[in-house]
Amino acid sequence: MKLTGKNFIGSERSGSGKTFQAENPATCAVLSPEFFEATPAEINAAVEKASVAFQEYRDKTGIQKADFLEAIGEQIVALGAELIQRCTEETGLPEARIIGERGRTVGQLKLFAQLLREGSWVDARIDTADPARLPLPKPDVRSMLRPLGPVGIFGASNFPLAFSVAGGDTVSALAAGCTVVFKAHPAHPGTCELVANAIVEAVKISGMPDGTFSMVYGKSIEAGQFLVRHPLIKAIGFTGSYVGGKSIFDEANKRAEPIPVFAEMGSTNPVFILPEALSQRGEQISSELAASITQGVGQFCTNPGLVLVEESEGSTAFKKRIKNVFGDITSGVMLTHGMQENFSRGVERLQKVEGVRVLATGKNAGDGYQGIPSLLETTANTFLNEHTLEEEVFGPSSLIITAAKREDLMAVANKLSGHLTVTLHATENDLKEFSSLVSVLEQKAGRLIINGYPTGVEVCHSMVHGGPFPATSDSRSTSVGTRAITRFARPVCYQGFPQWLLPAELQDSNPNKISRLVNGNLQRD
Amino acid sequence: MKLTGKNFIGSERSGSGKTFQAENPATCAVLSPEFFEATPAEINAAVEKASVAFQEYRDKTGIQKADFLEAIGEQIVALGAELIQRCTEETGLPEARIIGERGRTVGQLKLFAQLLREGSWVDARIDTADPARLPLPKPDVRSMLRPLGPVGIFGASNFPLAFSVAGGDTVSALAAGCTVVFKAHPAHPGTCELVANAIVEAVKISGMPDGTFSMVYGKSIEAGQFLVRHPLIKAIGFTGSYVGGKSIFDEANKRAEPIPVFAEMGSTNPVFILPEALSQRGEQISSELAASITQGVGQFCTNPGLVLVEESEGSTAFKKRIKNVFGDITSGVMLTHGMQENFSRGVERLQKVEGVRVLATGKNAGDGYQGIPSLLETTANTFLNEHTLEEEVFGPSSLIITAAKREDLMAVANKLSGHLTVTLHATENDLKEFSSLVSVLEQKAGRLIINGYPTGVEVCHSMVHGGPFPATSDSRSTSVGTRAITRFARPVCYQGFPQWLLPAELQDSNPNKISRLVNGNLQRD
Repeated sequence: MKLTGKNFIGSERSGSGKTFQAENPATCAVLSPEFFEATPAEINAAVEKASVAFQEYRDKTGIQKADFLEAIGEQIVALGAELIQRCTEETGLPEARIIGERGRTVGQLKLFAQLLREGSWVDARIDTADPARLPLPKPDVRSMLRPLGPVGIFGASNFPLAFSVAGGDTVSALAAGCTVVFKAHPAHPGTCELVANAIVEAVKISGMPDGTFSMVYGKSIEAGQFLVRHPLIKAIGFTGSYVGGKSIFDEANKRAEPIPVFAEMGSTNPVFILPEALSQRGEQISSELAASITQGVGQFCTNPGLVLVEESEGSTAFKKRIKNVFGDITSGVMLTHGMQENFSRGVERLQKVEGVRVLATGKNAGDGYQGIPSLLETTANTFLNEHTLEEEVFGPSSLIITAAKREDLMAVANKLSGHLTVTLHATENDLKEFSSLVSVLEQKAGRLIINGYPTGVEVCHSMVHGGPFPATSDSRSTSVGTRAITRFARPVCYQGFPQWLLPAELQDSNPNKISRLVNGNLQRD
Repeated sequence: MKLTGKNFIGSERSGSGKTFQAENPATCAVLSPEFFEATPAEINAAVEKASVAFQEYRDKTGIQKADFLEAIGEQIVALGAELIQRCTEETGLPEARIIGERGRTVGQLKLFAQLLREGSWVDARIDTADPARLPLPKPDVRSMLRPLGPVGIFGASNFPLAFSVAGGDTVSALAAGCTVVFKAHPAHPGTCELVANAIVEAVKISGMPDGTFSMVYGKSIEAGQFLVRHPLIKAIGFTGSYVGGKSIFDEANKRAEPIPVFAEMGSTNPVFILPEALSQRGEQISSELAASITQGVGQFCTNPGLVLVEESEGSTAFKKRIKNVFGDITSGVMLTHGMQENFSRGVERLQKVEGVRVLATGKNAGDGYQGIPSLLETTANTFLNEHTLEEEVFGPSSLIITAAKREDLMAVANKLSGHLTVTLHATENDLKEFSSLVSVLEQKAGRLIINGYPTGVEVCHSMVHGGPFPATSDSRSTSVGTRAITRFARPVCYQGFPQWLLPAELQDSNPNKISRLVNGNLQRD
């Protein structure tokens, strides 16, 4: 497929004026073609088309939307080797990773299609009338979740497929019945074009209205701002940095009509290694943890950036071991030049903090924008006095914090702000001894992991990829897993409606055979 | 019980310095005692106590919390005639209404207690492990809703029991497992003290930690601001005016850690009367609608403030009839002097708009802060050109809008911003003919009512008392009905946890016998 570099106003293509190009981070080579930054007029056209399309798309049945999502998956697979090649060129990620990520992306589409076919996600509730009730008759009241409207979605750079054009945010919005205007991440515009083509093709094949999906390019902050400020946009999904996410959140709240923003802004994902686990499994943990820190050049939102241990013989041995392991790890190509620069600056910032020292540095593997693994260490006291040590450094680095006393470990736990994940390595004895620690940590994260690693986010019904601020702008949801759909829907209540005018999900006959709460009892036909 | 006028720092009472007093709006008499405005130190003490109490309260079982909520109800009933008398004195509302509202408040506590005893509200989800899965083993992942933390709640003046101290916001927060610092509405401080005493007594009886509930007084905006800005407060519930709610929403978003705000800010609740219904039932509708507009001196968030008709013989007859009915309605005492002044100013503001004229005015019944019913009329064209006509005038008034053409009626519908409710009076033929209108209106409100009236909000599982901005600050929830509990909870995910460390709701044995989504299938033991 010949890339055109043009924006998608639904199925129409548009582009003129200012352009930018992608770069291969492994070779620093500039990649063709030129991509056209969307003008305000183009973004406006996309949003208006999304708004018109919404009037039709919102009433598509679950089965129609499920077919559509599956068609997107098929069209993505049909892109074949071209997608894999362009994506590896634009991201420097290895082919096997991109193939795996494509599988995850298609799997995610299928999971939401299943959710829609099953249909109970709408949280249907029925309270039947009682005309004889005193002092007042009881009306017939029914409610279910309905889509919010056209949604603006900002793609991430670190998952060019799974958190990008057809990623979790787009899929959950489309599944909810919202139309989408997607702001492509400028780091992989060709990948974006290929996938957007797949979606637009699926729109046609599935008979969805033109404008159900649009995609605009933009390197400047203005394109994104214009999208967030547009009065017809009713919600925002974002995955990326704290600075980016927070500015979108603020912008959305400054609107005449504020709109909900679900921004996943990353975190440092503390890992607590408790004493008995450290003494029994220290060696194994040191290897596995080093791998988790440096896997994918550390470019995961769930990368373990803080490691906490209590001072002991075990902790000394652990640090010695992980230092050795870490020193042997070679660097890898980061996604963009900017990301590599930010990473280097971030590591430097940490190093400059008094009381922080470098424990180990990986090996420089050579060409392109290499991220060199960096392991730092400090004390709980230093951490407690320097809040910037909790800020994310995106890339293959981590900070080991040693607590001289158990109280210091608890103090660190209490001081933590919100994270996507918190991990504990612990034996049963550890968990019993540190039960108050577990209770504190439960208040700090969206996901708690015992004896595992935070990297690797399972796409399933129970996943929570979220967490208290600043991990996200709204802890009450998730951007991975089927619960993500609720971000883009609101309950609508129908009182005194005749059967024929009710949505199918609320009709007495329950044509879709979904689970419903009828007069307070969960029922399934 | 002797009223002290002091703030509740958990079970401790505190007050000194600045005071204010309640006023009987029916007699303009100042009521004893003096109430002490909370100082920042007192609010801080209440929040810190709520934060400490949260560490224990969050782990109370559903049954323990249910017992607690029911104990609150019993303590409120035990206040007997004293509560009813003080409440009527402070609000000017008739005794029968207050007794009814007490019933609703106690019923609401019982409904949430039922929800907690049943237990499935936590949305438990389990995805079991598959160590043999390729390329990577599948971890054991489970999640459920957990409470956000201490919540600040602002009471409304118009429901001195059902939306006040032990009202829907407090109850849903306590049910979720959050502790509460309640900001009493200064219009009924004695009622607040009595009910707060009942809650504090229930805290003791039920063995809940001291600080589970606190209540602070404040007439100034600063007390509320201090509460919203406090770093230990994790969410806000509010019911009241747009100005009050929006300023709290903005304040909460300006925090270093923004927190969710559910502000119910009222609306004008448009009522569309379609042609056939108008011609068949115009007389009945005119009487019922006049009653709905003036019931409770119009002091309901769901008061019908806009009435839309298409110009016809039927509409002319309807306006003539409702004019006659309305002219015979007598005024009633409004809740406060300020409210009466705002109402008068609001009606004046509407009257001054060119193209708006007074259709009917009710009769002045005499003493106290009387709200005189006021019915205005205008054309769709005037409405379309003057956006302030959609703003709420809190009290017994409504604006009848006549559309010269059907397109104008559709234009009005399309132009509407968010409302709590939209009502349609329609025959089956009307509904078929106006299907596109129904589709538009579904996007404008939290609740759609056919052939009923928006006043009278049923407390049940399916109720949605919410709606798009500016009706609320977050359309994705409700402040009435059991779904309100989700405002104060977030999903927490447990990966690789041993059974004994999991919350009961997520253990394999399902000790509470709740409904759970297990590997994507809804199961109930």
